[in-house]
Parts: sequence; structure tokens; C-alpha cells
Amino acid sequence: MVASEVRALFAVASRPEIVSLAGGMPNVGALPLDDIGEIVQRVVADQGTVALQYGSAQGDPVLREHICEVMRLEGIEADSDDVMVTVGSQQALDLVTRVFINPGDVVLAEAPTYVTAINTFAAFQADIRHVAIDEDGVIPEALEEALANLAAAGRRAKFFYTVPNFHNPAGVTLSAERRQRVLEVCQRYGLLVLEDNPYGLLRYEGEPLRALRADAPDNVIYLGSFSKTLSPGFRIGWALAPPAVRDKLVLAAESAMLSHSTFNQMVVRQYLASHPWREQIKDFNEMYRERRDSMLSSLESLMPAGCSWTVPQGGFFVWVTLPEGLDAKAMLPRAVTERVAYVPGTGFYATDEGHRCMRLSFCYPTSDQIREGVRRLVSAIENEIALRDTFGGATSSTTAGPDAPTPDLP
Amino acid sequence: MVASEVRALFAVASRPEIVSLAGGMPNVGALPLDDIGEIVQRVVADQGTVALQYGSAQGDPVLREHICEVMRLEGIEADSDDVMVTVGSQQALDLVTRVFINPGDVVLAEAPTYVTAINTFAAFQADIRHVAIDEDGVIPEALEEALANLAAAGRRAKFFYTVPNFHNPAGVTLSAERRQRVLEVCQRYGLLVLEDNPYGLLRYEGEPLRALRADAPDNVIYLGSFSKTLSPGFRIGWALAPPAVRDKLVLAAESAMLSHSTFNQMVVRQYLASHPWREQIKDFNEMYRERRDSMLSSLESLMPAGCSWTVPQGGFFVWVTLPEGLDAKAMLPRAVTERVAYVPGTGFYATDEGHRCMRLSFCYPTSDQIREGVRRLVSAIENEIALRDTFGGATSSTTAGPDAPTPDLP
Repeated sequence: MVASEVRALFAVASRPEIVSLAGGMPNVGALPLDDIGEIVQRVVADQGTVALQYGSAQGDPVLREHICEVMRLEGIEADSDDVMVTVGSQQALDLVTRVFINPGDVVLAEAPTYVTAINTFAAFQADIRHVAIDEDGVIPEALEEALANLAAAGRRAKFFYTVPNFHNPAGVTLSAERRQRVLEVCQRYGLLVLEDNPYGLLRYEGEPLRALRADAPDNVIYLGSFSKTLSPGFRIGWALAPPAVRDKLVLAAESAMLSHSTFNQMVVRQYLASHPWREQIKDFNEMYRERRDSMLSSLESLMPAGCSWTVPQGGFFVWVTLPEGLDAKAMLPRAVTERVAYVPGTGFYATDEGHRCMRLSFCYPTSDQIREGVRRLVSAIENEIALRDTFGGATSSTTAGPDAPTPDLP
Repeated sequence: MVASEVRALFAVASRPEIVSLAGGMPNVGALPLDDIGEIVQRVVADQGTVALQYGSAQGDPVLREHICEVMRLEGIEADSDDVMVTVGSQQALDLVTRVFINPGDVVLAEAPTYVTAINTFAAFQADIRHVAIDEDGVIPEALEEALANLAAAGRRAKFFYTVPNFHNPAGVTLSAERRQRVLEVCQRYGLLVLEDNPYGLLRYEGEPLRALRADAPDNVIYLGSFSKTLSPGFRIGWALAPPAVRDKLVLAAESAMLSHSTFNQMVVRQYLASHPWREQIKDFNEMYRERRDSMLSSLESLMPAGCSWTVPQGGFFVWVTLPEGLDAKAMLPRAVTERVAYVPGTGFYATDEGHRCMRLSFCYPTSDQIREGVRRLVSAIENEIALRDTFGGATSSTTAGPDAPTPDLP
């Protein structure tokens, strides 16, 4: 399958009879739509001449104050002057890449990593090098080895891109102990960290962990988003960066779009000021916890021997590894025939890896749909195992990265 | 003055006692805020699960149909499949530049041209070459000469960037007869046209002209915007491009932001479907016409000999040329002392030109403020003339382009 085939397949997968475990869409149906409708109406009626006008490239100052309050929940003490509002954290990722990367520059990223980060780094012709992760997140020794190898070759990485909490796609979380070691390694090599944290507040068990940025303000660019804790429909994300970087990012944002929507920024600011948003996140977390539990218990009771998967403490994703000889990408058309969809693992690597892996999302389907989806998936996997035992293993073509659809879209 | 000084000066210029003829902000106070408030409320309450969700990178299909209807007013027959919704037309400009320009590539642009276009081209390290304009827009012979010179040097331009209607900053409009000649020259040299048309529907006299795109669908990328005909606060612009270019732009948009705000797109689509938007544009045009007339009549009756200015048939801007020996940038601090602000001409060139020029905006201040602003400006100019006659001419430093603030911001 080539990229266009995968896209075509996902178009089929959006049909109602298919259980999609592919998309990373939050369940915005759980939002208090009437309250939000009232907020948006009031922003236009009461403050329309400001809300409907151009704003500054850095973003609304009051919203930036609220963003600092949100980040404080993960130990970050920041000055709102160092925050820039962006079109989702995706734009922040894009602007950081644009500011730092010249063609051929090295970027370090976890293996696997967020597919659209790969696309963005590739768009600016970065040389993406992967660093291994396990169930506790990135392995500090692997990071150090990658840096030492680069240094030995007379090269440097521009930054290390990491999703420390409830990793997309792997579902794992960087442990507290490793956070310190990762920071120590990065500081020793003078390496900037790009900490992407869209899911951090969506924790369903265990204690919140301090953001990397909380302990290394000069060494970390932190990306946040309201797409999962409120709604992706407003496209409000942000970057927190050391002042010299922030200035460059603001200039890049001005060139990229003049300014973000003043209206949307005032809506989110009004929501944060007047709505019990912490309670809303708790409600989201209860809902998503139940869905995660449905997925994990279904996997536990149904998956055939030789399959393994990660156990996320939050976020949206479980990362499944199939038995030897199976290929998740080659299997996808047959899974769709069984009326279930997922994202094959190969899309989450800049290199030719991940053939035995897939990402399952539990954020959007209901618990019943998840259980049914896992049943269908298991049926597809069992058929593959039978095929393998009869005919030998299937293999998929080896295109990397952009062959997967954006996983945050349906 | 260096860039930071100009920015500081503009911070002073936003004080209430100053009449600012600098900003290019539309007068959104003239919008029916209650109606728009109702629209935004209904979009969330009735269609919130779609409006608050991720959308596609290309943009909402229904909105793209409406955009085709808007473009039809200027003779464009387009398929909505070839339209992409962007964060203002600025993002479209940025994405086109990103897709086409490698460092050192040549871009042709009018002299003067839109300041943020210069910034965007410069951000991607384009080699910007200016083409002369007069009161009828770009001079076809000058365009042809630029192309012939490039060809003689073994080089090609990637595209010709033009604002054909009510030019920013020059206020002039490309005549119907020249449109055909410009297209003919571009087709002969295989040169892509980037037609930026944010002001086209804001015409206060004369007949509407066909867009360049209307007569050369394969040769023109057309940029449009609702920022001036509705509101810049929603950040809804668009690009219309030949399919092969459109595909590249959509991929670039996905990398840049995943997708635009579904909510904002549905609001604009609902506004276009349910509100008499053509009448709203007529209302805007009556208001802006009155302001333009106030500015032109004040200039006519007050400006000292040796000053000249353009007479715009629409849009927001008048371009003033001062007498020999005066320097609009050097004069700006003294104009601010007289409690009037404008944008010095130097910011609208990638080269060291425009010292005797300034851009005056009549979109935001009232007619009374405009008359008072011109009085103060004339006083400042007369003082400069007296200074020049006593001490000789003043000159400003020769930084180009980015030393002016974004003219669409206050």
C-alpha cells in the first residue's frame, strides 16, 4: 500500500459500520454546549469590536495569564510574556521547526513518535534520528548514546522532541526519575528539549508528574494545547519559550498568519475565567478512564498469545505489538473488512520500523464500541496468524512517515 | 531610527490623543454584532459536536462553495475542490512561499508592496525584485523588462506577487487593459501570478474589474479574505490554486496547523448563508467612501505645493509623496509630536526606496478625525519644509522592509 491507498482506506474507515480505533479526536460531545454557546454569544455581543478585530502575533495577554495558571498544575512557573498563543500546538511545533531547522539539521525524536511531527520535521528537511523508548518513556542511555554518536561524527542535534505524558502513539509516560536524567543528559550536551504535552492533564490514575520545563526553564520549549482539555475546534495551543526564542517565534508567527483569531482567544479566556474548567477536565477523565479500561480489559481477555500492548495511565492511546511474522499495515485492508480500523505503526517512524505495531485509540468510541472493535480486531489478527502459519509472513511496503493519515483526524 | 524605535513610536501612536492614519484595521464596529452573536451561539448549540471538533486541512466543503460564490463577483469560475481555507490570506501567502521558494529564488513584487509579504518572502530568503507601478498599477513594460533581464542572467522568477485592486500601500488599481497585458507577459515567460485581493469588493466608484485569475485559471494562484468584508477576528482567508499546487498547499497546511478552526469556518459559512452579506459590504462601502472623500478633500485643500498622492477608487489607503528633500521616516517622530501617525514608505520596499513616501489609511478613523489628522500632518510637513529651507534636507537610516510595523495592526 502506498500513501494514497492508506488515505483511501481511511475514507472507507469513516463509514458508520466501521469501529474506528484510529482517530485521535477528543469526545467534544461531553462538553457543556449550551454554556459554551452562551460564552461565544456574549463575547461577540459585549466585546465584539475587540474580538472581531486583528490582535497581536503573540496573542491575547489575558489568555496568556490563564495559560500560566494551567501550566502551574504541572509545576511550571512562567511569565506570561514568555508565552505565545498558536493555532493548536501543531503551529507551535511548525514555528519552532521553522526557526531552528535548516536542511540536513539533526532532530532527535522518540521511536515511535507523533506522525505529524515527523511530517513537519521532514517538511523542513530535518535529519530525524530516533531514540528508543520503553514502558517508562525515553531511555536516557539511548539518548546519551545518540548524542555521543553525533558528537563523534562532529555533528550536533538542534533539539530533542519528546511527548513525555501518555505518549502519542505509544501511550507510555516518562518516569519522574528518568525526567531528571534526561534533563541532565540534555544539559550536559547543551541540547534544547522540545516538550510536547497535549495530554498531560488527562491522567486517569497515579500522581501528576512535573513537566520537564518546570525544572529546566532555560533549556526547554514547552508546547501546550486546549484541544484535548476543551476543544480542538478553537485551535488554541501555545508555546512557552526562553525570551530569545520567543522573540523569534513571534516574528515567525507574524509572517505565518499576522495574528491568531482574537475571537477564539477571548472565548477560551472567558471559558477559563467563568467556567469550572478543572471540573470539566475531571469529567473528561472519568469518561476516558472508563473507555481505557474497556479497551485494556478487552485486550486482556481476547488478544491471542504473542501480542503485547502498553498500559497508559492517561491520554488516548494504546500501542499494540503483534506476534512475529505479522504486519499491521499489510493487515489493515483485512481489518477494515472485519469493520475495524487502527493506525499501522509504520507511520510513526521516520525509518522503516513499526511493521508489527499499531496504535489503538480509545478516546472517541464508546465502551461498547471499543469492546466490539477489539473483538473484530482480534478476529482479524487470528486470521493473520492462521495465514502466517499456512503461507508464511506477510510484509508491507516500506514507505515511512507520511503514509499514515494525521492521527488527530478521523 | 531602527526597527525597535519605529515599533516604540507606534506604541506611542496608539494613544487616544493621536490620530492614527497608520493602521489598516477595518471598522468592525459597523458590523451587526447582535446578529453575529446569535450566529456564533447557534453554531455551538446546534452543531457543536462538529464545530468544536478537528476538521480537514483543506477546510470546510460548504464554506468553500460559498467562497466560490464570492469570487464569482469578480468573474472567477472555480471548483470548490481547488479552494483551500487559510488563517487569513496571510497564511495562504506564507504557504505559497513555503511551497515555492528555496533560499535565493527570485520573487517579483510591485514597488512598493505589502510589507508583510516582504517579511514572508524574506523569511524564506527569497531574492525580492521590484517592478515599478504608476496610477494604473504595475507597468507591463517594467514587468517584461524585469523578466527579460532575469532571463539574460540565466535566472527565472518563481512568481509575480501583485495586489491588483486598491493596492496596499499605493491605493492604485491595475487597469482592465493592463490586466490582459500583464497576463500575456506572464504567460509568455511561464511566470506564475500570485494575485492577492483582500480589498477587491470594497469599491467606492467605477466598475468592478475581472480578477486576473478569471482569465488565466492555470497561471494564477488567487488569495482572498473575509478580513475586510466581514471581520479579521475569525481569520478566514483562502487560496484558489491549480490542482497540483493546491495539493502541495494542503499538505503544507496540515504540517503548519493540522486544520483551521472548524468553528470559525462554520460561523462564516452560516453568516454567508443566512445574512445579507452583499448589503453589509454595501454599507461598509458607503462608510469607507465617506472617509476616503474626507481624506482626499482635506489633502486637496491643505497639502502644501510639491506634495502628491494617489486617488484610490476603493480599499483603505492613499500613498503620499512629499516634496524633494523631505524624509517621511525621519519626520515621523515630529509628526507624532503633532499627534498624528502614518506608516513611512520605506517599509514597503525590499530595497532602499520610499523615503519621500508615506501610507495614509482612512479605514479606521472617522471623517472628523481624518480631517483633523490631515491638518496635523500638513502642519508637520510645513515645519519640515521650513527646516529643509533653513538647514537642508533630513535623511533617515536606510533599513528596508521589516522596520515598519505590520500595517494591518494598529
